[in-house]
Amino acid sequence: MRALVLGGDGVGLQTTRPAPTPAEGEVLVRVVRAGVCDTDLQLIGGYMGFSGVLGHEFVGVAEEGPFATQRVVGEINCNCQHCWTCLAGRPTHCPHRTTIGIAGHDGAFADYVAVPQHNLHVVPDAVPSDMAVFAEPLAAAYQIPLQLSLTRTDRVVVLGDGRLGNLCAQVLAGVCDAVLVVGKHPEKLALLDALGIRTALLADLPRDRMADVVVDCTGSATGLPTALGLVRPRGTVVLKTTVSGTQQLPWASIVIDEVTIVGSRCGPFDRALAALEDRSVSVLPLISARFDLSDGMRALDAAKQRDALKVLIDVALD
Amino acid sequence: MRALVLGGDGVGLQTTRPAPTPAEGEVLVRVVRAGVCDTDLQLIGGYMGFSGVLGHEFVGVAEEGPFATQRVVGEINCNCQHCWTCLAGRPTHCPHRTTIGIAGHDGAFADYVAVPQHNLHVVPDAVPSDMAVFAEPLAAAYQIPLQLSLTRTDRVVVLGDGRLGNLCAQVLAGVCDAVLVVGKHPEKLALLDALGIRTALLADLPRDRMADVVVDCTGSATGLPTALGLVRPRGTVVLKTTVSGTQQLPWASIVIDEVTIVGSRCGPFDRALAALEDRSVSVLPLISARFDLSDGMRALDAAKQRDALKVLIDVALD
Repeated sequence: MRALVLGGDGVGLQTTRPAPTPAEGEVLVRVVRAGVCDTDLQLIGGYMGFSGVLGHEFVGVAEEGPFATQRVVGEINCNCQHCWTCLAGRPTHCPHRTTIGIAGHDGAFADYVAVPQHNLHVVPDAVPSDMAVFAEPLAAAYQIPLQLSLTRTDRVVVLGDGRLGNLCAQVLAGVCDAVLVVGKHPEKLALLDALGIRTALLADLPRDRMADVVVDCTGSATGLPTALGLVRPRGTVVLKTTVSGTQQLPWASIVIDEVTIVGSRCGPFDRALAALEDRSVSVLPLISARFDLSDGMRALDAAKQRDALKVLIDVALD
Repeated sequence: MRALVLGGDGVGLQTTRPAPTPAEGEVLVRVVRAGVCDTDLQLIGGYMGFSGVLGHEFVGVAEEGPFATQRVVGEINCNCQHCWTCLAGRPTHCPHRTTIGIAGHDGAFADYVAVPQHNLHVVPDAVPSDMAVFAEPLAAAYQIPLQLSLTRTDRVVVLGDGRLGNLCAQVLAGVCDAVLVVGKHPEKLALLDALGIRTALLADLPRDRMADVVVDCTGSATGLPTALGLVRPRGTVVLKTTVSGTQQLPWASIVIDEVTIVGSRCGPFDRALAALEDRSVSVLPLISARFDLSDGMRALDAAKQRDALKVLIDVALD
């Protein structure tokens, strides 16, 4: 099969890689569409030391199992379901887990991917594959209201106008009246303006500390210090940015201002699919380019561009 | 009056400084006893850029106002009581505040200190001044259960066997069954052992990530990275350490493990005084040295020693 494979000598398209052999409890999924995430670009840069098939945002057709012939999306954390962490209701943190396309498990930039059956969610008929491919990052956005006790009057700042910042802003605008997205790209902010969500350029932002909640979706080591400069005392910073290596942080202000920092990662797929089905979140305007899997290297290049939003990889027809 | 004063040329004892003139709403307090805090040592090192009379842990006798002639302790944040932050119930974060002995307000290593009347708490007769002087740091320890939803079965690690670590451990041991204090000083850990609180040397600590809550009381920039290596996924790190400057932190683990970091500062004086009165917290064994105010420079030196715990300054008779 075709696959975009990351190895010691970088990333490349393979065309004769054997299809994955599903492990016990896994089923084979024929990939239809996949999305490029900033994490993919970080993995190529050395983050997590991953080698294997890239890709963790995907929609496909189950080849076997109870969902055979149906369109599915898949959660990416492959957990053991038996350890205390899994039993405690934190399966995405299973210490024995692999993560599809990120750690110890081949991903979905390929004709086929093996996915644990219990990770799969059937895609409603009303959700086309170009929308369903957003289930994984949209679920990550819905993780935020699960972690915080948000109220309608909370003042929220989302830092970052990229793919994840856009989705987080849309989700949070459904919960809180005052959501402000701060970015550097007028054309990306315009997508949010069109949805009635307030935006500002980072350079224009008043440096008052009035936000109850600041969500860092910058993907940059500058995000957290900027967030700490915007959040009010006893406010909350949600950290979505993962950056490799060690960062500089003047942390006395965390203590002096009694700020809470909440790390936030994967979220509820069922909630994301419901929002895609009822159209309460708009994702199609986020698609900035698409390439066939055979042109997958161009998709990765396109995702690196400053003006890129979501780059899709067309793997097959539905 | 006598006062330990921090200025551009360092700290020194003055003997002819005028007593402070209370501002509107303030009363004069004749200081009886004061305690040296790590923050005092950091201020001398340049933290906050403070100049003035040092000292924010004190007990004294009110010279005027409704509590005149009674023994009092005083909260250190002098707030405006009118701004939105004060009205929202966060007076310790008032943006217009001064902080006694720390920022913009002379402190209590002196014969007299001026304190806002509404910051004062009368000391119960059953609490001797050598105990009452611990009200401020003990209140800071009681801030932790106010900020977290602790349960009896939470596994808690307190990092640091110094003054604040000891008090935090005692407070948390009253709420949670499993509290472990991790330190570097066998003789300081022995004080906790004597109270039935489990202890371990940092060097002996297994590097498993099993703690629900880790409280950093190390006063060192190494505390937070150590805490992140001990806390379980979705666990909480309470940050008590304030260090000046910028620290190194590999923060991807905060996101990957969805850890919550909670900055924690000043706390409830009424709760601290009640604990001192009912003897549910033991503070007298923490007194490692005491000096008359006229020997105040020696008190500061003694507090810097590796084996020091709480160094008291005797200012006057009760």
